[in-house]
Amino acid sequence: MAKELTSRSENYSQWYQDLVIKADLAENSAVRGCMVIKPYGYAIWEKMQAELDRMFKETGHVNAYFPLFIPKSFFSKEADHVEGFAKECAVVTHYRLKNDEENGGVVVDPDAKLEEELIVRPTSETIIWNTYKNWIQSYRDLPILVNQWANVVRWEMRTRLFLRTAEFLWQEGHTAHATKDEAIEETEKIINVYADFAENFMAVPVVKGLKSANERFAGALETYSIEALMQDGKALQSGTSHFLGQNFAKAFDVTFATKEGKEDYVWATSWGVSTRLMGALIMAHSDDNGLVLPPKLAPYQVVIVPIYRKEEQLAEITEKVDEIIAKLKAKGISVKYDDRDTRKPGWKFAEYELKGVPVRLAMGPRDLENGTVEVARRDNLTKEVTSLDNIDEYVENLLEDIQQNIFKKAYDFRAENTRKADTWEEFKEILTTKGGFISAHWDGTPETEDLIKNETKATIRCMPLEYEEEEGKCIYSGKPSKRRVLFALAY
Amino acid sequence: MAKELTSRSENYSQWYQDLVIKADLAENSAVRGCMVIKPYGYAIWEKMQAELDRMFKETGHVNAYFPLFIPKSFFSKEADHVEGFAKECAVVTHYRLKNDEENGGVVVDPDAKLEEELIVRPTSETIIWNTYKNWIQSYRDLPILVNQWANVVRWEMRTRLFLRTAEFLWQEGHTAHATKDEAIEETEKIINVYADFAENFMAVPVVKGLKSANERFAGALETYSIEALMQDGKALQSGTSHFLGQNFAKAFDVTFATKEGKEDYVWATSWGVSTRLMGALIMAHSDDNGLVLPPKLAPYQVVIVPIYRKEEQLAEITEKVDEIIAKLKAKGISVKYDDRDTRKPGWKFAEYELKGVPVRLAMGPRDLENGTVEVARRDNLTKEVTSLDNIDEYVENLLEDIQQNIFKKAYDFRAENTRKADTWEEFKEILTTKGGFISAHWDGTPETEDLIKNETKATIRCMPLEYEEEEGKCIYSGKPSKRRVLFALAY
Ligand SMILES: [Zn+2]
Ligand SMILES: [Zn+2]
Repeated sequence: MAKELTSRSENYSQWYQDLVIKADLAENSAVRGCMVIKPYGYAIWEKMQAELDRMFKETGHVNAYFPLFIPKSFFSKEADHVEGFAKECAVVTHYRLKNDEENGGVVVDPDAKLEEELIVRPTSETIIWNTYKNWIQSYRDLPILVNQWANVVRWEMRTRLFLRTAEFLWQEGHTAHATKDEAIEETEKIINVYADFAENFMAVPVVKGLKSANERFAGALETYSIEALMQDGKALQSGTSHFLGQNFAKAFDVTFATKEGKEDYVWATSWGVSTRLMGALIMAHSDDNGLVLPPKLAPYQVVIVPIYRKEEQLAEITEKVDEIIAKLKAKGISVKYDDRDTRKPGWKFAEYELKGVPVRLAMGPRDLENGTVEVARRDNLTKEVTSLDNIDEYVENLLEDIQQNIFKKAYDFRAENTRKADTWEEFKEILTTKGGFISAHWDGTPETEDLIKNETKATIRCMPLEYEEEEGKCIYSGKPSKRRVLFALAY
Repeated sequence: MAKELTSRSENYSQWYQDLVIKADLAENSAVRGCMVIKPYGYAIWEKMQAELDRMFKETGHVNAYFPLFIPKSFFSKEADHVEGFAKECAVVTHYRLKNDEENGGVVVDPDAKLEEELIVRPTSETIIWNTYKNWIQSYRDLPILVNQWANVVRWEMRTRLFLRTAEFLWQEGHTAHATKDEAIEETEKIINVYADFAENFMAVPVVKGLKSANERFAGALETYSIEALMQDGKALQSGTSHFLGQNFAKAFDVTFATKEGKEDYVWATSWGVSTRLMGALIMAHSDDNGLVLPPKLAPYQVVIVPIYRKEEQLAEITEKVDEIIAKLKAKGISVKYDDRDTRKPGWKFAEYELKGVPVRLAMGPRDLENGTVEVARRDNLTKEVTSLDNIDEYVENLLEDIQQNIFKKAYDFRAENTRKADTWEEFKEILTTKGGFISAHWDGTPETEDLIKNETKATIRCMPLEYEEEEGKCIYSGKPSKRRVLFALAY
């Protein structure tokens, strides 16, 4: 096979890189840290977007669009935010180029210097809250439930396709509320939407939880996240929802007249998922043969390959295949028929395996005689020959089966790789020999978390929302603790 | 009415500005030249995007995503392109801020200067053709039919919401072909898609034509455009499709092995429409009462307002309205039921008139008794009372009617405002007293076009694809001409 991948056991990180490139998902561009999302990768992202957008709208949200640029001074207005964000970013200082008379080409025109530099948005809380100031006067103007699909830029020195890139695509929700309770409810509603999407569409099981103070969003009072486990035993934060309190309202002076006629600052949330989800999707399910896609997000769910020697065989097969396609499409199943004569069936089989198409149908002259078709599933690589009668229902059920099987496999993997540690020795041993999630007691202090991180690189992924109260001792400090939290090495 | 607009006859430009702001479509942001697209305006843009995206996909195109930033040197590679584009643009020179120890806040870190400046894309031909270089080796890799939905930035000194903004949203198609004919066919296919969209969804009649050399895209051999006429008699270029020849392939050294085993440069097209279409949509149909939306692009096609005195009346009305909503939704009609008790019916009527909702239903106690409902259409402001029997079919037909009526009105307006001029005096008189499209002979030289523009500000909008050969004399130079072209003042 021409496009062989490095195996996961050999070099997991190289396997990922190979897979992203060879399955035509994305590639590095001429601009350091920025990626090109190729059509096949983008088609998956579009499916994700469509589902998420539907979920946001069903929960009462609307879309809007805010400027790409943010005046530099805006970042200084919220003290924590500037610490967390304004540093590594793309800065626009000029607005014109001019011909270089001496050397040819173009140079920056020194006469076209901006009075105030503009920052390419790394996230939009500041520009949005500066806008909300004019939208909100009274409780009647609340809540504002706005989402934006956009590109953002955070200058990164070490980048990896989808997982960490200077420019990435995301959605960022920014909501404004009259009460604290309502804002917290919104924050929680969204983390549930994210978990629902991850589990039921991406087929990636996630743990919902609260971030520790160290890992919180810059400017948030509370950050909720969903955490997924990759096949190398490392965690991947897949979505975050922040309760921002009144911090941004205070920074941008956004107040409203309450029902009772008083003046109060507005309560805020923000939340986002990004093209990083593509990384999670790829790493959670794929194998040494290539991508494994959950049917609900596959650009096409079924590929049909004709097997023939002579032209007239192809014509007969195609006639039958057209019937199958019509039946499948009537069930809302997306199908690609690859009848190219420039590639052999074996090449096509390998190609669609690499690209993770959930179901492959192959039809040859013998199938035509017998009224059968060969069905191969990508998730477990099994094949069987089945009758063409009711092929639509057969495939429909199979896709459902694959969706569930992929989830179950990831769920079982996570269950096997979530371990309790009760001593520091145990913790370190699990971390170095097995990885995965480690459930352990912690004394609740940022200092201890820092010490653990410095010694092991492990961080608290979250304090799961579902947990049991349990008396215990911090694995590091030995101080008393009332609950376990989830540690892991992380992307 | 609290939100009264400036009338069109009083001040057309102010009317437009008022309308965009008061109908909650968009507003200026804190960043000069950049707009905020508000939820109601964005919902219309989303409808446009969805239809266009569907049309692109039906014609074989796929989406992808390329970087926001372009290395400065890329612009120098295509000589015409740099002249046309690289000058007024946002230049990123640094990648870090740091705390300002003396004055507080943040300043640009002088140590974080980029070796080569990055330009925020004004259009993506250069970065995309630099990428295609690696995607194309042989004729088997062609055609590439890629589209991108993205934000772009062109520094503009005088901006107007939607019509001309520093940052705007658009789609840019970039295709690569093995032959000149195929590329020209693609260029024409897309201008037909744009015209289809403008006429059948936006209800805006357009003229398809070729641009003169003066008005061509920088780097194109031929630019096709669709031109629409606004109510003030000015033309608005609403979409362009460019045949780029082999210019970008030569600039970025993109060659391919032909079927015959030779080496040749790849043929290119690019094409785009932007949020400028929002401006065309607003200006083509709206009146002094507000927005008039074609049903096919309205965020909601029907609004229902209850008219009542007592709470129990509202309950009864709502029960009946719920039945209507269910029926309408079953027909795929989008409905909003505004049962807020914080606003009076009169306020709501004015609000939805301002927002251009195509159909308004109002139901009061008497309607309830009689099994009727009051139906008001936004396009011609007529009202009638109709029976609730078959209300779904009634509304469905009405929406179709409104869509066609809006188009017809714009079509008739254009017909009345397209005039032939045969002398220079006549040309100037029509231009100053009536405006509109002027069909006139032209000697075909850029020099004459420039002279006409300098004297009157009118430009050649296009050389229509549909025309009759006709011997004549250039209205300006008197030189012989074989066909008329279309002049107008333009946005
Ligand atoms: Zn803060
Ligand atoms: Zn050129």
